Amino acid sequence: MNISIILLLLIVALNFSITQSFQHPLDPLSPKEINEIRVIIEKSHLKTLKNLTYHFVDVDEPEKDDVLHWLSSSSSSSSSSRKTKLLPRRAKVVVIGGGQTRELVVDLSKRLIVLDHVYKGHGYPPLTFEELLQASLLTQKDPRFLESLSRRNLKGSQVSCLPLTKGWFGEHVSTRGVKITCFYRNGTTNIYARPINGITILFDLELMKVTTYMDRYRAPLPKAKGTEFHSRPVQPGPSYPNITNSKFSIQGNLVTWGDWKFHVAFNSRAGTIISAASIFDGKENKYRRVLYRGHVSETFVPYMDSTEDWYYRTFMDVGEFGFGKAADSLQPLVDCPGNARFMDGYLVDAFGMPNLLPRAICVFQRYSGDVAWRHTEIGVPGRVIRNGEPEVTLVVRMIATVGNYDYILDWEFRQTGSITVGVGLTGVLEMKATSYTSMDQVTEEMYGTMVAPNTIAINHDHFLTYYLDLDVDGNENSFMRSSLQSERVRRMSTPRKSYWNVKKKIFKREAEARIRLSSKPAQLMVVNSNKKTNVGNPVGYQLITGQPAYSLLADDDYPQIRTAYTKYQVWVTPYSKSERWAAGFYADQSHGDDGLTVWTRRNRKIENKDIVLWYTMGFHHVPCQEDFPIMATLRSSFELRPTNFFDQNPITYKVKS
Amino acid sequence: MNISIILLLLIVALNFSITQSFQHPLDPLSPKEINEIRVIIEKSHLKTLKNLTYHFVDVDEPEKDDVLHWLSSSSSSSSSSRKTKLLPRRAKVVVIGGGQTRELVVDLSKRLIVLDHVYKGHGYPPLTFEELLQASLLTQKDPRFLESLSRRNLKGSQVSCLPLTKGWFGEHVSTRGVKITCFYRNGTTNIYARPINGITILFDLELMKVTTYMDRYRAPLPKAKGTEFHSRPVQPGPSYPNITNSKFSIQGNLVTWGDWKFHVAFNSRAGTIISAASIFDGKENKYRRVLYRGHVSETFVPYMDSTEDWYYRTFMDVGEFGFGKAADSLQPLVDCPGNARFMDGYLVDAFGMPNLLPRAICVFQRYSGDVAWRHTEIGVPGRVIRNGEPEVTLVVRMIATVGNYDYILDWEFRQTGSITVGVGLTGVLEMKATSYTSMDQVTEEMYGTMVAPNTIAINHDHFLTYYLDLDVDGNENSFMRSSLQSERVRRMSTPRKSYWNVKKKIFKREAEARIRLSSKPAQLMVVNSNKKTNVGNPVGYQLITGQPAYSLLADDDYPQIRTAYTKYQVWVTPYSKSERWAAGFYADQSHGDDGLTVWTRRNRKIENKDIVLWYTMGFHHVPCQEDFPIMATLRSSFELRPTNFFDQNPITYKVKS
Repeated sequence: MNISIILLLLIVALNFSITQSFQHPLDPLSPKEINEIRVIIEKSHLKTLKNLTYHFVDVDEPEKDDVLHWLSSSSSSSSSSRKTKLLPRRAKVVVIGGGQTRELVVDLSKRLIVLDHVYKGHGYPPLTFEELLQASLLTQKDPRFLESLSRRNLKGSQVSCLPLTKGWFGEHVSTRGVKITCFYRNGTTNIYARPINGITILFDLELMKVTTYMDRYRAPLPKAKGTEFHSRPVQPGPSYPNITNSKFSIQGNLVTWGDWKFHVAFNSRAGTIISAASIFDGKENKYRRVLYRGHVSETFVPYMDSTEDWYYRTFMDVGEFGFGKAADSLQPLVDCPGNARFMDGYLVDAFGMPNLLPRAICVFQRYSGDVAWRHTEIGVPGRVIRNGEPEVTLVVRMIATVGNYDYILDWEFRQTGSITVGVGLTGVLEMKATSYTSMDQVTEEMYGTMVAPNTIAINHDHFLTYYLDLDVDGNENSFMRSSLQSERVRRMSTPRKSYWNVKKKIFKREAEARIRLSSKPAQLMVVNSNKKTNVGNPVGYQLITGQPAYSLLADDDYPQIRTAYTKYQVWVTPYSKSERWAAGFYADQSHGDDGLTVWTRRNRKIENKDIVLWYTMGFHHVPCQEDFPIMATLRSSFELRPTNFFDQNPITYKVKS
Repeated sequence: MNISIILLLLIVALNFSITQSFQHPLDPLSPKEINEIRVIIEKSHLKTLKNLTYHFVDVDEPEKDDVLHWLSSSSSSSSSSRKTKLLPRRAKVVVIGGGQTRELVVDLSKRLIVLDHVYKGHGYPPLTFEELLQASLLTQKDPRFLESLSRRNLKGSQVSCLPLTKGWFGEHVSTRGVKITCFYRNGTTNIYARPINGITILFDLELMKVTTYMDRYRAPLPKAKGTEFHSRPVQPGPSYPNITNSKFSIQGNLVTWGDWKFHVAFNSRAGTIISAASIFDGKENKYRRVLYRGHVSETFVPYMDSTEDWYYRTFMDVGEFGFGKAADSLQPLVDCPGNARFMDGYLVDAFGMPNLLPRAICVFQRYSGDVAWRHTEIGVPGRVIRNGEPEVTLVVRMIATVGNYDYILDWEFRQTGSITVGVGLTGVLEMKATSYTSMDQVTEEMYGTMVAPNTIAINHDHFLTYYLDLDVDGNENSFMRSSLQSERVRRMSTPRKSYWNVKKKIFKREAEARIRLSSKPAQLMVVNSNKKTNVGNPVGYQLITGQPAYSLLADDDYPQIRTAYTKYQVWVTPYSKSERWAAGFYADQSHGDDGLTVWTRRNRKIENKDIVLWYTMGFHHVPCQEDFPIMATLRSSFELRPTNFFDQNPITYKVKS
């Protein structure tokens, strides 16, 4: 074991070089900058506001053109001259104070608030961890709740309460609030397995008190037995000490690996953000642009139980709270393999203070035993020619634990030019108590699966919408569908009667590029018609999806109005700096009057423009007993695959022939 | 490097134990048995037949009931008593001799031919490597071909000719034959990159001579430059020496790993066959049956060019030749990781002789850096509870190189009870020559993509049909579809307006269980309604597919008539020992009068029966330049996932709570 640790350390030392972070315009805010922002605000005209809380603090990026210019000039100039070219450093801050939501832009170089705007639209900014914790704690001290517990013979010390976002259901007047749901741990650490059902608690986040309390009925409490899950010790690896085919480096937030270079940022709302991903073309002998920006834009997790305790559970975790805020400190050897390198992240709390999140992101080379390419040729007389290479990829991983669920979020870069975006779902199901202990007793609709005695796990969906600002060899791109169509053979020179061919369509405007994937076969591509391969094909990247899913809710149902875009998996918009969040920025209690559906009503032109591809990955989750008490990871992915982007398989550029 | 090799050897010694093979009724024929079969036939009444060639030699398995009985008694008795329970050992042999195809059953214990039947139906048995080689060599000596070469100024020494199966296109009378297509290597080992187009050559395999020869036109020959691909050296790994979470053993053809045990056979037609896969249930404290048999049943690869050189290319590689016969000797460190164990295979040549194929199958533990399950709980006051485990799986791999294409065929077993069946496509595209060097010159239909100057890669499909004889906790199973249906909320006690629920349907007969997957969401399951979980759910395994594809050819087109089942991805049949090959046993030049489509016309009952699930995985392949000169592996998979099979996630059975 000593020997392998020494070997591992040696390889770590060989493979990785880390230097002090330098300021890239897309770098997340540093703790020093976060402190500066708070100080600037505290010294400003806002200092008189009571109970000022910070709900969103992020770098306010320079314009895309400026960033692109910075990138191209910084890559061609020496590192010493970089500092002189720094773009203005600004932050976007959303605070609540004096009962108002204010959008601020803080200029860090000028040390000034350069914009202060009171937001008066629908919806609220992301919730803070601190107010959610307060809501739980205050509820657990509420006399009405204590009485409910005593009526059920439950010990208060064994209760955990969780605040859940309450959605929007047509109310004309509403206040910021959450619904509180409570669990009885007593004998387990799997709190979700023992829900205390029958109590409705509405907590007002402006008044910071319970405003509605209803103890409606008592339900049996599922047993603690069989609900625990604990790791077995991992010994001593796993790791891949022997992978030396390729190396990677992390300099600040810049990752270079094989032919790839890209910027990785940790963001409180989106989690991992991949920016300015370019790939070196060994034939053209230069880096070529692929993806200006990619990240999760929104999630939508509606539960399929229309009863009082459940109807409102229609979560939009990214917008309501934040995948970055929910990011978990990664466990070495469990969440990431032994060869992983970790990147820390900083979050801003409700008081504007920077909080370190150690190991927010990991980056590792993956060798899963797969084959990148291979062929054996026996057609050359007297020889058997075997060729091939093992596939080594680079994975950038983050895990968001949003209450009960854990989302494993991967960006995987391949030497072939592909980017695979993977999502793994694990964690604990949301469950309700029932008096039934066996299916043969069931007489009414359950809205889910009985996964244990007295325990029903509720049917639900997960939709993850990705923002994919592809810049295939430049900004001017188009979105193309190549449909495969059955054809009859017209000239009957052979007995063959049919075949399929490819009908290509370039989409002109937003409305037509809104696509619900069907079983009709088609390739979806982002192409650059201004740039051709050696034989004249437009260069492009293809979107290869997994099994598609779209929302099955009614169009007029409130959660669906807020996330209307989930009826289609694919949307294309012209790039606009302000259009990042598919359900709008103010997602908490939103009314559906911002976001993808609204922006695209203008039906803007998207041909030969700087376009953004939005893809929604979906899971319909009918729970099963194997999901209890902890889910085996359920995975899905999509791939951005170079398709006539290179003149030929780029792997062969590296191979001496 | 020395140290790591020593470590590796140590771990190999610790992890694997191999004993002398013992005879399991599903074991493939040993070289000794193959020799015995040949001797028995050579001494029989068949000895007078001229030019007797062996086209198929396989174990003729005992009846399933007998095998199951043997399995259950052998697992409960001591190993010494096993020998007394050996089932009769028989072989199925198909020979051609005296112009007739004969089906023989050879009893190895009695040393007798116990069945001799002359087959007079349509189609022919699998082609032999020897006759295909002869066809190529004889064509290259044909004076007409030599003249064609000289007319093109091509050197005969640089030509490679390949025989292609010719399909069936409505001929009433036909003879066994192949079409020969030739390539000019001169300067490359990528023979497919330089097709010599414009020559039609029909080779008669009964007469063993060219019977049709037409030199129709001359096409430009694509250049050799840029067509090569060669491996870079792999140094020194990759491997996973540190994975010690789980061990596996191979005893003869029996593999045990974690809770799984199963039988792996190498078969000339199907390639890898997985049999009698059972999983140990830590709660019930016994092995439970999952999959009696799983293997590739047929492949269908139609090309989408209706012209003279291409229309007939509608390959059924498994039936026409055999995935096992096409299996490649696996390259350690490239095709399988450093920790892989290899299993040899034996093939029978045209003369009835056993041929060793070293490293036909590899078995390895995979750790790809993924997470089997995890959760972080912050809801327990004062604690942050992190749990999880890395995911280690067991992969059984074979690679079939069928001419230009390489199929990487994986069976991956998970500790959660899932089986993932993966297919990777790599190798070289089939291409035709063209006078075009750039897309802007193109004026007519190309039937494919220009991937290099003068080179068009033809559009095509790959359909791989899997035979999946699931026996979920016993023989009596049913096939169930759980459809997700949008519902309006009827009782308006909450403002929620819609949800989805699950409508279950058990299929009664074959005709209704023929399913074309659509975007309508549904779960497909094989359930055992006679066996319930602790809370009364029928135990089951779910089929989770990737992006589905079905054949786009016209129903009345000849290749589609031969593979009519490819219009639907899912079929269910009652188990019948003789129904193994989806397009019928005699696939070469078949007329579509055997196989899945024909068997199911009887519309047999499938409820609570021993049923077989047939799933067809499909790829529509529109080639791109990145596929040239060698394809980066394109992957697809499906999963058989336990769904209410266990009372809870079986991983938690191992975890002390």
